[in-house]
Amino acid sequence: MKIIDLIEQIKLKKSYLCVGIDPDLDKIPEHIKNEDDPLYFFSKAIIDSTIEFSVAIKFNIAFFEVYGVKGISSLERLINYVNKKYPKVFTIADAKRGDIGNSSSRYAKAYFEKFGFDSITVSPYMGKDSIEPFLCFKDRYAIILALTSNSGSADFQLIHSGEKKIYERVIIESRKWNGSEKMMYVVGATKAAHFADIRQIIPDSFLLIPGVGKQGGSLKEVSFFGMNHKVGILVNSSRSIIYASKKEDFAERAGHEASRLQGEMESILKEKKLL
Amino acid sequence: MKIIDLIEQIKLKKSYLCVGIDPDLDKIPEHIKNEDDPLYFFSKAIIDSTIEFSVAIKFNIAFFEVYGVKGISSLERLINYVNKKYPKVFTIADAKRGDIGNSSSRYAKAYFEKFGFDSITVSPYMGKDSIEPFLCFKDRYAIILALTSNSGSADFQLIHSGEKKIYERVIIESRKWNGSEKMMYVVGATKAAHFADIRQIIPDSFLLIPGVGKQGGSLKEVSFFGMNHKVGILVNSSRSIIYASKKEDFAERAGHEASRLQGEMESILKEKKLL
Repeated sequence: MKIIDLIEQIKLKKSYLCVGIDPDLDKIPEHIKNEDDPLYFFSKAIIDSTIEFSVAIKFNIAFFEVYGVKGISSLERLINYVNKKYPKVFTIADAKRGDIGNSSSRYAKAYFEKFGFDSITVSPYMGKDSIEPFLCFKDRYAIILALTSNSGSADFQLIHSGEKKIYERVIIESRKWNGSEKMMYVVGATKAAHFADIRQIIPDSFLLIPGVGKQGGSLKEVSFFGMNHKVGILVNSSRSIIYASKKEDFAERAGHEASRLQGEMESILKEKKLL
Repeated sequence: MKIIDLIEQIKLKKSYLCVGIDPDLDKIPEHIKNEDDPLYFFSKAIIDSTIEFSVAIKFNIAFFEVYGVKGISSLERLINYVNKKYPKVFTIADAKRGDIGNSSSRYAKAYFEKFGFDSITVSPYMGKDSIEPFLCFKDRYAIILALTSNSGSADFQLIHSGEKKIYERVIIESRKWNGSEKMMYVVGATKAAHFADIRQIIPDSFLLIPGVGKQGGSLKEVSFFGMNHKVGILVNSSRSIIYASKKEDFAERAGHEASRLQGEMESILKEKKLL
C-alpha cells in the first residue's frame, strides 16, 4: 500500500484509528469458544464491525503464536480475508522482530510475501543491518520501536547518550539507513510530553501510537502533539474495542466503540483543519 | 532443564557446542527438496548426526516462520522429536522476542509451554517488564541480547551512556530483574575484546556465543576470554555445520564438522583444567 493511499483513506473515513487484534481464547465470548477456529471467527467479526471506522488493523502476533500451528493458521486465514475483502486497509504485523541481516530478511519475507502484510513492527537494538532487510520491499513498511508505552521504556529508551536520549538516537540514526522513506515509528500514547521533540526530528514520518485506552494515554493529547500537516499518525486501540462486550453483542459493541473513537477523531481533524 | 544438568552434559560430552538450525530450502541438498517435509527431514538428519558432539541446539525461528504455517508445523515436529529422543540436550528458540508484558507472556507461553523449548532469546529494548514474563517459568531461561555479532551492534549497543556502554547497562540492569537467575546473555564471537568487561559484571552467567565460523569469530579466543570456572559458555555454529556439504553426505559431513569443533573444545577444556 502506498502512503498516499493511506492518507486518502484517513480523509475519506475521517479516522486515523487502528484496531488492534489481540485475541485471547480466555477472554472471548463463551458462545464463540466452540467454533472450529475461534480465533478467526472472533477476529473476523471484530474486523467486519469496525472496518467502517478504521483505516488500519494491527495483528499482535504473540496472541497467535501462543496457539502454535493452529494460531498461525488462524492468522494466515485472517490476513488473507482482509487482503481480499478490504484491500484498502493498512495492515500491521505487530511482531517486533529484528535479527542479523540473514535472519531479518527471512522475517521480512514471512510477513510481507508469505502472509502479505503492509508493514511490520521491528526492534532497533541490533542496529542498521538488522532493520534494512525490512526496508527493501516496494510499498511495504517497517515500523521501528522508538519510545514505547510501557514502564520499561525508562530502562534504556529514556536514558541519555551524550545530549540525546537513546530513543532519539534510534530515530536520528534510522534516518540514515537505506530505505528510510519506508520507515514509520512506534511512539506510545503515554509519552505525550516527548511528541514535540520527536516531531522536530521526524516532521514527516508516520507514527503508530499504541497505549490509548486501557494503558492510559489520551487521544486528544497525542493527536494534538503528534499530528503533522498530513495527519501522520495512526492511533491504536485494542482491548477497549475488542472486549467492549464479552456477550453475544461483542461485535456490535466493538463497532460502537470504534465509531465513538472515529467521532472524536473527526472532531480533532476538523479542529486541526485537516479535512 | 536445570543448569546443573547442562554443565554435566558439557563435561560428559567434552563439548560446549551449540548446533544452529537455520534450514533454507534454497540451500539444502537437491535430493531432499522432494521430501514431504524437507525442513524437518533436513534438520532432523543434522541433529541426529551432530548430537553426539553437541550439548545444545538453537533453532533460528526466522527460517521456519518464512514458510508460514508449514514452517511452524516443521518446527513443532522437530522440537517434539528432540524433546522425546534427546531430553538431555538444551534447546534454544532463537526468536529475539520482546513486547509489553501482556504480549511477552504470550511469547513465553508459546515457546516454553506450547513448543517446549528450554530457552528463548529476547531483545532488551523495551526494558524490565518486557523481559520478566520470560523469567517466571521453572527451569526455563531467557537469553537476552547483550552484545551481538553483527556490524549494527555498533549503532546502539556500543554507544556510551555516562561511563557505561549501552550493552553494559543492559547487563547491569537485567541483574536487578525478578528471575534474573534464569537469565543468560548473547555475546557475539566477533566481540572478543569485550569479554573481560562482561565477565566482570556477570562472572557466573551462561553466555550464548554465536558468530564463530562464517561470521569470523575465533573459537580459541572466545573460549579463552569467555569461560568461567563452570565453563559458562555455549558456542554456536550454524552454517559451517549444516552446509558442510550440499550433497548426499550432508549429514555425515555435518557430523564431521561438529566432531572437529568438539575436538577443539575438548582440548581447550583440558587446557583450562575444566575436565
